Order: sequence, then C-alpha cells, then structure tokens
Amino acid sequence: MKIQIINGPNLNMLGIREPAVYGTGSFEDFLEKLKVEFTDIGISYYQSNIEGELVGKLQQCRGTVDAVILNAGGYTHTSVAIHDAIAAAEIPVLEVHISNIHARETFRHQNVISSNCIGMITGLGLEGYRLGVIYFKKKITTSKA
Amino acid sequence: MKIQIINGPNLNMLGIREPAVYGTGSFEDFLEKLKVEFTDIGISYYQSNIEGELVGKLQQCRGTVDAVILNAGGYTHTSVAIHDAIAAAEIPVLEVHISNIHARETFRHQNVISSNCIGMITGLGLEGYRLGVIYFKKKITTSKA
Amino acid sequence: MKIQIINGPNLNMLGIREPAVYGTGSFEDFLEKLKVEFTDIGISYYQSNIEGELVGKLQQCRGTVDAVILNAGGYTHTSVAIHDAIAAAEIPVLEVHISNIHARETFRHQNVISSNCIGMITGLGLEGYRLGVIYFKKKITTSKA
Amino acid sequence: MKIQIINGPNLNMLGIREPAVYGTGSFEDFLEKLKVEFTDIGISYYQSNIEGELVGKLQQCRGTVDAVILNAGGYTHTSVAIHDAIAAAEIPVLEVHISNIHARETFRHQNVISSNCIGMITGLGLEGYRLGVIYFKKKITTSKA
Amino acid sequence: MKIQIINGPNLNMLGIREPAVYGTGSFEDFLEKLKVEFTDIGISYYQSNIEGELVGKLQQCRGTVDAVILNAGGYTHTSVAIHDAIAAAEIPVLEVHISNIHARETFRHQNVISSNCIGMITGLGLEGYRLGVIYFKKKITTSKA
Amino acid sequence: MKIQIINGPNLNMLGIREPAVYGTGSFEDFLEKLKVEFTDIGISYYQSNIEGELVGKLQQCRGTVDAVILNAGGYTHTSVAIHDAIAAAEIPVLEVHISNIHARETFRHQNVISSNCIGMITGLGLEGYRLGVIYFKKKITTSKA
Amino acid sequence: MKIQIINGPNLNMLGIREPAVYGTGSFEDFLEKLKVEFTDIGISYYQSNIEGELVGKLQQCRGTVDAVILNAGGYTHTSVAIHDAIAAAEIPVLEVHISNIHARETFRHQNVISSNCIGMITGLGLEGYRLGVIYFKKKITTSKA
Amino acid sequence: MKIQIINGPNLNMLGIREPAVYGTGSFEDFLEKLKVEFTDIGISYYQSNIEGELVGKLQQCRGTVDAVILNAGGYTHTSVAIHDAIAAAEIPVLEVHISNIHARETFRHQNVISSNCIGMITGLGLEGYRLGVIYFKKKITTSKA
Amino acid sequence: MKIQIINGPNLNMLGIREPAVYGTGSFEDFLEKLKVEFTDIGISYYQSNIEGELVGKLQQCRGTVDAVILNAGGYTHTSVAIHDAIAAAEIPVLEVHISNIHARETFRHQNVISSNCIGMITGLGLEGYRLGVIYFKKKITTSKA
Amino acid sequence: MKIQIINGPNLNMLGIREPAVYGTGSFEDFLEKLKVEFTDIGISYYQSNIEGELVGKLQQCRGTVDAVILNAGGYTHTSVAIHDAIAAAEIPVLEVHISNIHARETFRHQNVISSNCIGMITGLGLEGYRLGVIYFKKKITTSKA
Amino acid sequence: MKIQIINGPNLNMLGIREPAVYGTGSFEDFLEKLKVEFTDIGISYYQSNIEGELVGKLQQCRGTVDAVILNAGGYTHTSVAIHDAIAAAEIPVLEVHISNIHARETFRHQNVISSNCIGMITGLGLEGYRLGVIYFKKKITTSKA
Amino acid sequence: MKIQIINGPNLNMLGIREPAVYGTGSFEDFLEKLKVEFTDIGISYYQSNIEGELVGKLQQCRGTVDAVILNAGGYTHTSVAIHDAIAAAEIPVLEVHISNIHARETFRHQNVISSNCIGMITGLGLEGYRLGVIYFKKKITTSKA
Repeated sequence: MKIQIINGPNLNMLGIREPAVYGTGSFEDFLEKLKVEFTDIGISYYQSNIEGELVGKLQQCRGTVDAVILNAGGYTHTSVAIHDAIAAAEIPVLEVHISNIHARETFRHQNVISSNCIGMITGLGLEGYRLGVIYFKKKITTSKA
Repeated sequence: MKIQIINGPNLNMLGIREPAVYGTGSFEDFLEKLKVEFTDIGISYYQSNIEGELVGKLQQCRGTVDAVILNAGGYTHTSVAIHDAIAAAEIPVLEVHISNIHARETFRHQNVISSNCIGMITGLGLEGYRLGVIYFKKKITTSKA
Repeated sequence: MKIQIINGPNLNMLGIREPAVYGTGSFEDFLEKLKVEFTDIGISYYQSNIEGELVGKLQQCRGTVDAVILNAGGYTHTSVAIHDAIAAAEIPVLEVHISNIHARETFRHQNVISSNCIGMITGLGLEGYRLGVIYFKKKITTSKA
Repeated sequence: MKIQIINGPNLNMLGIREPAVYGTGSFEDFLEKLKVEFTDIGISYYQSNIEGELVGKLQQCRGTVDAVILNAGGYTHTSVAIHDAIAAAEIPVLEVHISNIHARETFRHQNVISSNCIGMITGLGLEGYRLGVIYFKKKITTSKA
Repeated sequence: MKIQIINGPNLNMLGIREPAVYGTGSFEDFLEKLKVEFTDIGISYYQSNIEGELVGKLQQCRGTVDAVILNAGGYTHTSVAIHDAIAAAEIPVLEVHISNIHARETFRHQNVISSNCIGMITGLGLEGYRLGVIYFKKKITTSKA
Repeated sequence: MKIQIINGPNLNMLGIREPAVYGTGSFEDFLEKLKVEFTDIGISYYQSNIEGELVGKLQQCRGTVDAVILNAGGYTHTSVAIHDAIAAAEIPVLEVHISNIHARETFRHQNVISSNCIGMITGLGLEGYRLGVIYFKKKITTSKA
Repeated sequence: MKIQIINGPNLNMLGIREPAVYGTGSFEDFLEKLKVEFTDIGISYYQSNIEGELVGKLQQCRGTVDAVILNAGGYTHTSVAIHDAIAAAEIPVLEVHISNIHARETFRHQNVISSNCIGMITGLGLEGYRLGVIYFKKKITTSKA
Repeated sequence: MKIQIINGPNLNMLGIREPAVYGTGSFEDFLEKLKVEFTDIGISYYQSNIEGELVGKLQQCRGTVDAVILNAGGYTHTSVAIHDAIAAAEIPVLEVHISNIHARETFRHQNVISSNCIGMITGLGLEGYRLGVIYFKKKITTSKA
Repeated sequence: MKIQIINGPNLNMLGIREPAVYGTGSFEDFLEKLKVEFTDIGISYYQSNIEGELVGKLQQCRGTVDAVILNAGGYTHTSVAIHDAIAAAEIPVLEVHISNIHARETFRHQNVISSNCIGMITGLGLEGYRLGVIYFKKKITTSKA
Repeated sequence: MKIQIINGPNLNMLGIREPAVYGTGSFEDFLEKLKVEFTDIGISYYQSNIEGELVGKLQQCRGTVDAVILNAGGYTHTSVAIHDAIAAAEIPVLEVHISNIHARETFRHQNVISSNCIGMITGLGLEGYRLGVIYFKKKITTSKA
Repeated sequence: MKIQIINGPNLNMLGIREPAVYGTGSFEDFLEKLKVEFTDIGISYYQSNIEGELVGKLQQCRGTVDAVILNAGGYTHTSVAIHDAIAAAEIPVLEVHISNIHARETFRHQNVISSNCIGMITGLGLEGYRLGVIYFKKKITTSKA
Repeated sequence: MKIQIINGPNLNMLGIREPAVYGTGSFEDFLEKLKVEFTDIGISYYQSNIEGELVGKLQQCRGTVDAVILNAGGYTHTSVAIHDAIAAAEIPVLEVHISNIHARETFRHQNVISSNCIGMITGLGLEGYRLGVIYFKKKITTSKA
C-alpha cells in the first residue's frame, strides 16, 4: 500500500516558526516517526510552495499510489486548479489542516477544494496526518480483502 | 479516561436509513465494537433530536469527562446555543460528521459551532468517531504523563 | 390510507390568537370536521413547539403512514434537522402554511425544508390542510390502483 | 361563478415535452376534464408566452371574473409588470406551479409576484390547478352566502 | 418640436385603478390638457404592456422626434433591452415615474435604464410629464437658437 | 403586578462559568435579592435550554402576567418560533442580554426577536434585569393609575 | 407662498468648478434669475457644507415655509440625520440633483433620504430647481384654492 | 441540414447604429453572404424585440431544425422564459454575442440562459455567427456519419 | 459623581414633533425632573446636530465626568468618528435610544458605535435615560466603595 | 502569421482523464491535425500548470506572435496576474474553454481575465481552438490586406 | 512651495490618547520638527472634527497651495462630501493614515475618498506625513523644473 | 542594514510596457539609482512571476535581512500563501504599489496580504519604493540606537 503526503506553501517552515507551539522538530522528523510506526505502508512526502507543482504532483499520483493526504495550505481557499487536479487524480484524497481553519480569519472559511476530497481532518496538529494514515490503512485493507 | 460521544438529530436513524451506504448496524452496534477496542477508556453515548437537550448534556460534561466527540447534525449550521454550551463545558470538544459536509448543500457550509471546537473530522463515516477516540487517547495520555 | 398532520410551534394558539382572523375554533375543532369529511382516511394529528420532537415524529412516520402534511411554523426557515428528518421518513411530505409566507417579513422568505417536500400550499388558511388531504387521497388511490 | 386560468411561457408545451413525466395529454385535455368536473363554474383559459399579454389579460379580469389561477412560468421570478397587474386586477389571484420551484435552481427561489397573490400551490402537478378551483369554489360560495 | 411620450405596462389603467389617488381621468384626458397647454409642440403618445414593443417604439424615435419622456413602469427595474434601445435611439430620453419609486418596495430601487437617460422626475404624479415637456421645450429651444 | 423573567440556554450556568466575571452567585441568588427589593411585585422565574419550552412559557404568559423580561440567549439570533410566540403572548416583552451582544461575534449582531419586543437592555450585566423591573413597575403603575 | 432652497456640500463651488459644464455663473446668479421669474413666491436660499447645519435648517423650515427644495449633495447617500430632519419638518421636501446620480459611481446609487421626500428631479442641471418651483407653485396654489 | 439563427432585441438596428463599429451593412446583408458561403445548409433567420416571441420561435425549432444560433440580446441576462424554451426545444443551441459581454457593464455578467446552451461565442463580432455555422456543420456531419 | 448626557441630531425637536407620542414637554423639561430626582449627581446636558461637535464633546468628557449617556441619533448608524471619540474618551459610555431601533427601517439595524459602548438601552422612551442614571449611580458607587 | 496556443493547469491530462468524453488522443494529437489543416500559419503550443509561467509566456508573446488562444483553466477564475499579463502582451488574446463553464459550479462563473480578452469560445470542445484559429486567420489577413 | 496638512476627527487627541504608542508629544510638536526640517516649504496645518469644515478647507486649497496631505480619520470610510471636495480642489491630495487601516475593523476597509486621491501612505505612524512632504517636494520641484 | 525589495508578477515589464507613463528605464535602472543614493544600506532585489517563489523568498528573508519592501502585484488580492509567508518571515514588511490600486477595478480593492504588513504606500510610482527605504532607514536606525 502506498500513501502520498503532499504539503503546500509554508509547511516547510514547521519546526522553525513558532517552536513553542509545534515543537522544534520539522515535518521531516515527524515523517520519520510515521514511517517507523507504519512499516507496511509506503509513505512518500512532497512539499512545494508553488501551486502548479502541487497540481503536477497530484496528477502523478494517478495510478501510482493508493491514497493522498493533502494539506494545500493557503491554496485551499482559492485554487480551482488543485480542485481540478484532485478530480483528475481519481484516487481518494483526504484534506488535512494542522490548525482549526474554521476558528481563524474569515477568508479561511472559504474552501474550494473540499468538494472533491473524501473528507477533512482539521485542528488536530500533526496527529491529523497520522489519523489519515490509520484511516486509509483500514479502509484500503478492508476494501482489498 | 472518560470520553462522551454526543449525537444530534437524525443520527438515531443509522442502520435504518440508507443501509446500502451505512450498513445494517445501528450506532449502538458500532459503539459496542468501539468499547471492545478501547477497554481502557470509559466511552459514554448520548443521542437526542432536541437542541436544548444537547446543550444540557454538554453542560453536564463539564468536570465529569475528559473529552467530547460531538456530531451536532443539522444544528451544526445554526445553533448559537450549542456554540455557547461548548464554551461553558470547558473541555476539548471534537466535531465529527459522517458525510463530507463541505461537498453537500450550501447551507451545510455555514458552521456556527466549529470556532469553539478543537477541530473537525468529516467525511470518513463512522471511522471518524474511532479516529476521534484514538486522538484523545494519545493526547490525554501524553498531557497527563 | 393514513395521513399524519404535523404542526409546529405556536399553531397550538389557533382559536385563541387573532380570533377575528382565524375564527374562535381551535385546530382540534377543524380536525374534527376534517375527519367527518374524510371518513375513509385515518387522519392523525400531532403538535409540538419543540423542533426535536417534530424531528422524532417525522422519523416515526416512516413506514407507518402514507403521507404527511407538515406546517413547521417558525422552524421552516432555519431547521436543517427537520430537512433531514423529512428525507429520513422516505414518504411524501406536503408543506402547508396558513398565511402567505411570501408576503410577510424577509426572514420568512428563506426556506430550508422545501427542497425535501413534494410541494407547498401557502396562504389559503386552514383550507390548505383540507386541500392537502384531497391531494393525497387522489394521488395514493391512483398509484395504488 | 367565473374562474380564469392564466398560463405563462412554455406551458403550451405540456404533453409534448417530457411526456413520461406529464403524460401525453395537453393542458387543453386537462382543461376539458376540469370543466366536466365543475360544471357549475365558468372556467376560462388563456395562455401566452408574452409577458405584456399576461399583463393585459390580468387587467381584463378586473370586474369580469371572480378569481384567477395564475402560473406565470418563468416571468414569476422577475416580472414587476405582472406584480403590478395583479394589484390592478383587484380580485383574488392564486399562484400555481406544476413542479416544486423551491427544489429547483436558485434563480427560481426569487419570486416577485407572490406578495400580491393570496397564496401559492406548488409541486403538485396539474392537480394544483384543480385544488385551486376547489378552493375558490368553497371560498366564494361561502362569502357570497 | 416633437416630443414622444411612452408609457409602459399598467399605465393604461390610470383613471380606473385607485381613482381616489389619481383622479377619475385617464392618461388620455391628461394628454388632451397637455396638448392644449403646449400647442407649439407635437406631443405624441404611445402605451404598451409589451417590453419588446416599447423597445421597438424607442427605436422608431431615432431621427423622428426631438425627445422622449419615458415611464417604463415595471420594466424599469429589469429591462436591459430597453436600456439598449434608449442608447440606440440616440436622442435625449427623460425618465418619469408617477409615484416616488424610492419610497416603495426594495425591488423598485434597482434601476437598469437610468444610466442611459438624461435624468429622472419621480413622485410628482402626472405633473412629472408636464415638467418634462417644460424642460425639453426650454432646452431644445435654447440649443437650436 | 406580575413580572415573568424567562432565561434561555446556558443561563443556568451563571455562577459556575467564569466566576471572576459574573461572581460566584447563581441567577437564583440574584433573583432572591430582586424579590427582596421589589416585594410589591410578583416576580416569577423560568429557565430552559429548549427553544420550544421557551415558546410554550411565553404562550402561557398571555393573560397571566403583566410583563415579561426575556433573555433568549443563543436563540435570540435565529428563532422565528420565539419571535412568533412573543406576538402571540400579547403582553409587553423586554429583551435583556448580560453582555453587550453588539460588541461580540458577527453572528450575534443578527437578531430575529427584537422587532416584536418593546425594547432591549444589553451589556449591563445582571443589572439589566433589575432595570427592567424598575421600568415595568413605573410604566404599569402609571398606565393603571 | 414661501419656498426654501437648501444646498449641501460643494454646491458653493458652482461657477468656479468645471465652468465649461455649468457656466461661469454661481448659484447666486441663478437664484437672482429665479426670483425675477417668480416674483410672487418668497424664495430663500441656504447653503452649508456641514451636515448638522442642514439638519438645523430643515428643522427651522417647519411651520415657516410651504415647501423645501433640497440638494443634499454627498450627504444624500449616507445621512440618516437629514432623513429624520425631513420627517421632523413636516412639510413637502423635493429632492433635486444637478447631475444624473443614477449614471455615476455605485456609491451614489444608495439613497438614504429619498424615502422621506415627495419625489426627486435629477440630471436636469439647474433647471431642476426651476421645475421644482413650478411644481410647488401649481401644487400649493391648487391645494389652497 | 437546417440551422436557425435567432436574434433578440435591438439586433434589428445593426448597420444603422454605430456604423463605424459594425459597418454600414445590416444583419440581412451579412446573412446573404453566409448563405452564399454555406449553400449546403438551410439557414433561416428570425428577429424579434419581444421576449415571448423568441420563446415561441425556440419552441417551433423543436423537431424542425438541427441547431439554433441564438443571440438573445438584453434578455440574456434575465429571461427564465427563454432558459426554459431552450430546454423545451431539445436541440443544441449555441449562444452568440457580438461584443464581449464580460468586458461591459456588471449587469451583463449575469447570464440566465447559458446553463441550457451547449456553449457560447462572444466578442468576435458577426464572425461569431459564422463560426457557429462552421461548428454545427462539422459536428452534425460527423455525428450523422 | 458627574454624568454627561449627550444627544445627537433632531433630539432638540422633542416636545414639538409628534407630541401625542412623546408628550408636550421638551427634553429640557425631562432633564429638570431628572435633576430633582438625582440631586446627588451632577447631570450635564449637551445637544448638537453636528457630528463633529458630538465628537468634540465626547473628547472633553475624558477626565471630567464619570460616565456618558449617549443618544447619537442618526449618526449611530454611520459615524466612525463618534466610534473613535468614545474610545478616546476612556470613560464608560452607555448608548440610549428612545424608540426601538431594531423594529424600524433596515438602515437603523447597522450600528457603528455600539462596539465601543458598555451597553445599550433602546425602546423605553425617555425612561431609558433615567435607567441609565440609575445604572451608573449604582455601578460607580459600588466600584468607588 | 503566428498564433500561440497557451493551455493552463490540468490540460496536460487530456486523453488520459475521462477518455469516453474527450477521446483517447492527447492535446498534442489534436495539435498535429491543426497544423496539418493550417499549414500557412505558425502555430506554437505551450502548457504549464504554474500560474507564473503562464504569465511569463504571455509576456514573451508581445511582439513575437500575432495572436494568442488562451485556456487558463482553473486560473481563469482568480488570476489577476494573468489579467495583467494579457494587458502587457498588447496583442489580441482569445479565451477558450473546452466545457461550458457557465453550466458548471458557481465558482467557475467568476471570471477575472475575460475583461482583457477580445472574446471567448466556451463549451465547443477542442473545436473551440480550431474556430479560434479560423477567426484569427480571417481577421489578421483582412486587417493586413 | 506650499503644502497644506489637513487632519480630521480625533487627531487632535494625539499625545493625550495612548501615549505609550504615539509618544507624549502632540501633532503640533511633530509639526514644529517638520517645519524645521523643511524650511523651504510653507507647511500649513488644519484640524477639525467637523466633516463640513474639512470640505470647506479642501475647497480653499484650490489655487492657494501646491498639494494637500489629508488624514480624514473616521470620515475616510463614508464621506462622499469629502470625496467631492477633493475633486473640486483640483490639486494633488495624498491620503495618510497613522495606523494600518487594512489591519483593523472591517468597516475601515471601505474607503470612499481614495479614488480621488493620488495615493495613500498608511501604517507608518507620523512618519507618513513626513514621507508625504518628501514626495511632494521632489515631485513638484521636478515638474516645475 | 539590509533591505530586500521583492516584486511580483508583471513588474519585470517596467520600461517596456507603457513607457510614456513609467519612462523607458527598467526597474533595474531605478534600482541602480537607489543604491547610489543609499550606499550605507544593502539593497537586494528579487522578482518573480511565480506565487510560490515569492513565498519562498519571503521565508528566506527571515533572519537574513532587516526589512522587506513588497509589491506582490496581482497576487496581492488573492494570495493567502503570501499572507502566511509574511507572518513566517517575522520581519517588518512594507507593501508598495506603483499605481493607486484603490482607484482601479473593484477586484483590486480586496487585499489579502495587508493585514500582515506594517503599512502600505500606493499610487506614488517608483517613488513609493524610495520612500519605503527612507522609512526603514530612519526606523531601524532609531530602534537600534
């Protein structure tokens, strides 16, 4: 089973920005622990600040991985291009956000990509990614059985 | 550790309505399996179709349980009373929805209660509740350690 | 053939409030005449001021009556819970309003439940209920024939 | 007693368009049955695709018929001219729609003419016209008594 | 000098509708007095309930009259076609309304045609038309001098 | 003279929630002092978290008390049912809020019930209720004199 | 007969600003001609850039003049205070604008004062004031007769 | 193969209005050239300023022509009646506009009819009609082959 | 203890305008009674129709009085300047309105100044001012004790 | 004559995604046929998923090609940067969309780039590009002649 | 070279209000330093809390100074009168705000006057005025050279 | 002291596009003069048309420069990603625009990034950048002293 995690703009700053909140470890540190916990799953990671590169990565997931965990960052709220790329990928995409976007600025309440995702986990910090892996592991195992 | 699951209106119809989608088991069936899986957690369950009873149950959770998993159903989109009761409970409340509410009718995109919750899991079916328990188990264990 | 009439908040005040407009008879008086006129139909009546109880009653109608005539009163304009309960009931629900809600305050122009009802009769006073019974009598008789 | 039925644009296509839904009979066929059922009422019929002709017909109803059953079709949602003509006619006008306009496109939720009508029957198919005749028959008979 | 007065829908009902307000005389009566007062001006009159006929009349005014006084009635608030016909006429068009449309329903506050007219007189009853003639008489006389 | 105080959802939490702000006394404590201060007025108190029960209580006030002081809590912003119940009660209802609702979240700026109340006192803490009693005492005494 | 003309902000700049459009004469020049033309009417003139002074002047008109011609300039679009002062004056107030405000910026389409005026003349230049005097002369003469 | 071109209000003014832009030829002139270029296609032409006549013409196209090229002019932005007539015609309708409506006034950005058309060509002048014919010629030829 | 009452535009017309509603006494008459009732409080009064003078008066209150009772009249709905002056005054300001502004025109529902006031009393007539004095007397006495 | 075709995000997926709809050929296949059909025109092709690269390509077209056919995909609805780049290119740009964007989700009805394009062809599949080439071929040939 | 600085409401409170933020010096103190730094420029200063006086001052600047630096304070967001006065002044007006108005309350995001100003400096404290003087000094010197 | 200037999309076209307005020099020319004028400041320059590259550059500024002058061009109006990157950079960012964006199209009035910037200079041409350097030079020198 293969799961692709895709992070959008500014998520490369984890561990640097606001360490009191997120800890001093980077997303790469978290990823290592995740891989250790789920050795039976091929977890790949991709980060880009560029909307079009996120589009391209989602396209590449088509037929090559079983599921995507996507945190599109700031592009979540405006990107029709990512919305379309999720549809083109034709695999289940789960939306994750570290903070609770519904409790923040009004412009974060608009969400262009959700309607093409299978669901969303928001506000649970990095645990959201881990819960996403747990979800896909059970779902795909069950449906393949 | 005690977790209270609270379900709002129409969630008593699970297993009856649209069995092809949700299976023929009721929420009570699911709950039994959940309790079996998490024997070290005291999981309570409450369902009501009445907004004010949900308000009352949330108030009672104050000081008596460690966390709440709340699916307020149709009241999610309009209930200031539940919004306020979550604040009054002063314990972490996680919002769960079975279907992906962002991919449904426009009136389900408005959410009055999210800003007082710690986060949301939506679109992952009954698994959303289970992931919520996993989340709280790890979080509370860690913070109590 | 069984028809359930369900009235929402403040409709228990008919006959008391504004008698010059609605007459001095209560809805119960009207109901008696209706039963006399349609002796071949089992007409039941339920009224509640509580949104969640209306939700519960609609759920109970599933599989127990042939049709529902629903005047949700003030909940018409905001209740997603009733909207969902109509869907869960899986029987035809006809929306009735005594006054012409489209000629009143702006907040009565928003209607959350209509999209799950088969239709609406509004502005025709208590006659609206009687026309609803006539409609269902013909429709159900025809479709069963 | 005289009742004028007025149909707006595209209602001349009944029986031709979507016969599986509306049957293969035209509105004229339906009208014949209606006249047979209500021999004591003078039922007239008028159809036009032209907004201004509907305005003119409504004006002519003033003082010549007892009531109007109006399905203004697509002009329902924008026509201030028909709104004004209803007021000028100074007789009761009942709005009828064959489909449930509240369950269709958003632009059909705006209604300019309702506030001058006595009420609306929507979503009950051609039965809506028949219920309108029943309503006026009882109402006018009662008020003339 | 030639002035064309164009009246839209329902203005043929003047003198019949609400005589206590508008008097028992028709627009034709008023027109006669206007012609008597301004014998040096060729005043023509046209009324139609049909939007497209008003469009056609405005087109015909191009090159044949010096000015138009237009009361488009209910079409004032929605008619892009009349908006365009005013531009195509390429002569000054003055908008007149008998009642004060800014003090009436909200849907009368939207005005699609004003931006192509030279100005508006509203709320001054039939006097509005007379003031319009006075205005054009002075303006055209001055500009031709 | 009889005055009914009606409190809506979450107001049963006074004294428990945020004691630094509201003090450690419950509304019942405050009520006792109020009764002591106004011994010549029959002050009744009712609290419910359930919208429909508030509707019912308002209906019961009709003809049994002289005035109502109503803090509808979170239902203030959406409840058409309470709006209608105030009208049905046909006695003066004064709206009170403990905090200044105009200085809080945007969704608290919408108010569905105010248009049927005689006025509002907001932001003055529990004093708002006391000022309401003073107001009614003077008003009713004067008008009965 | 006495008519008060009241001009709001920036109308003291007529004759100075954009002389190619408005001519090189000031409003005072125009006023002189107006007084010469209507010797039987007492025409007073007042201009202020200050909203509150316009409010005060309107209050003073109560019982001292027969009618007011008001060009509130930029305050037209926002001033509730002037809206209220017109009501307090309890004499007919006619709104005049030199340019066609409906053909200008969107913020000039909002009008707070119109609903308390008897009507509006807009877009006819200084002639608008003269037509206003003609209107009042005929109206007041007729109603006093 | 038969193609019906339908033009709405004010399009009869081509060649007269703004000749510097559109040339001095009428639409009829253009039509002649079109017929010469596409001798194998039966091209019919209809123009009306009246919304209801356009509705009627669209209805007549049902079963009598292969495709429609429609420029509904000003009715494009408001006409639900034409929207419905396109559906009733049950043949492919292509929307054409001479100018680029998206670069003009805001009220031209709203489009009620597009959702029932197969597509739109806008801003390419009279060439838009010609491209429409080329499109249908290829499409129908291919699908009939 | 010193309390400054500040009244905005048109409140100088009390006693003159609508005497059947407000009585034949002016605000000055009311003020006299207020001073007689509260001899231990220095009550000052200021009224202006000019927004900027109200701003100035609020600034002067800083450090010179204990509290302000402010009825900003029509400026309530638009004045950012008064909003800022309340903040600059740095003393508690209570907003009072004589009529129930929430039951009047829509433009009175917007309120720019409330968010800087401690609260509002609206709809209770001149009694609102008296209740304000009672409130401040108790509050300031208590906090100084 | 040189024409540059520019395709935005996800248009590189043609032929892969939804082959039943678009065929199994890629845009490159279509392009080959286009070049064969129009041998006298230099047709270049560029595709990128990255908004800023589309901006850059449009800038390069300035002075190097005669016209651009642009399908900006999802960026159509939000990209001010592409809007500005079209202006900077100072050559005619024709907007093309394969599907009828006006018949899809609401967020596709907003269009930021259209106002700088000469026109749009939408809903005609890949034929839209071919019609664009035909249009430019005739237009440029004519204007150069 | 002459530059007029105009400050609107509440800016007379600088140095008094929030000294920790703005320092204990008044605007007059700052002005003195400015005059010392730019001895070759005639810098005048005017402050008023009254909208109409700001209008009058702007009018007086016409032809008497080279440029205006305007901080209209709270009137920035609503004043059409100041918008018009800037146009009437016919000299370059630069808008300055001390705080960053785009990072404050929503009602400060609306700006009625900006479209008539040459530009804006916001958020840079009193330095904004100084930068404005530097800007005009260079611009006017250059253009006069 | 180090200042980074960052320019967004289409600003690489300065000197090429509209030379009559901006002169024939590129931004690089302007930069050279700036460096000559401020030899004691390390001024770096970066331009990209790609939103994500601007995000990346802003991240790199963290801890490496003292301040940023940012003209995000078209991304100003939609980019949540840049909004977040400014926060992540944790150094003062000043927003500059060459033209007065408040006097241009409506879509340029929305600004997503301003709330994270310290302020804005708009409409002053390339001088805006120079004033920004002057501002930071004084501010940083002062705060370091």
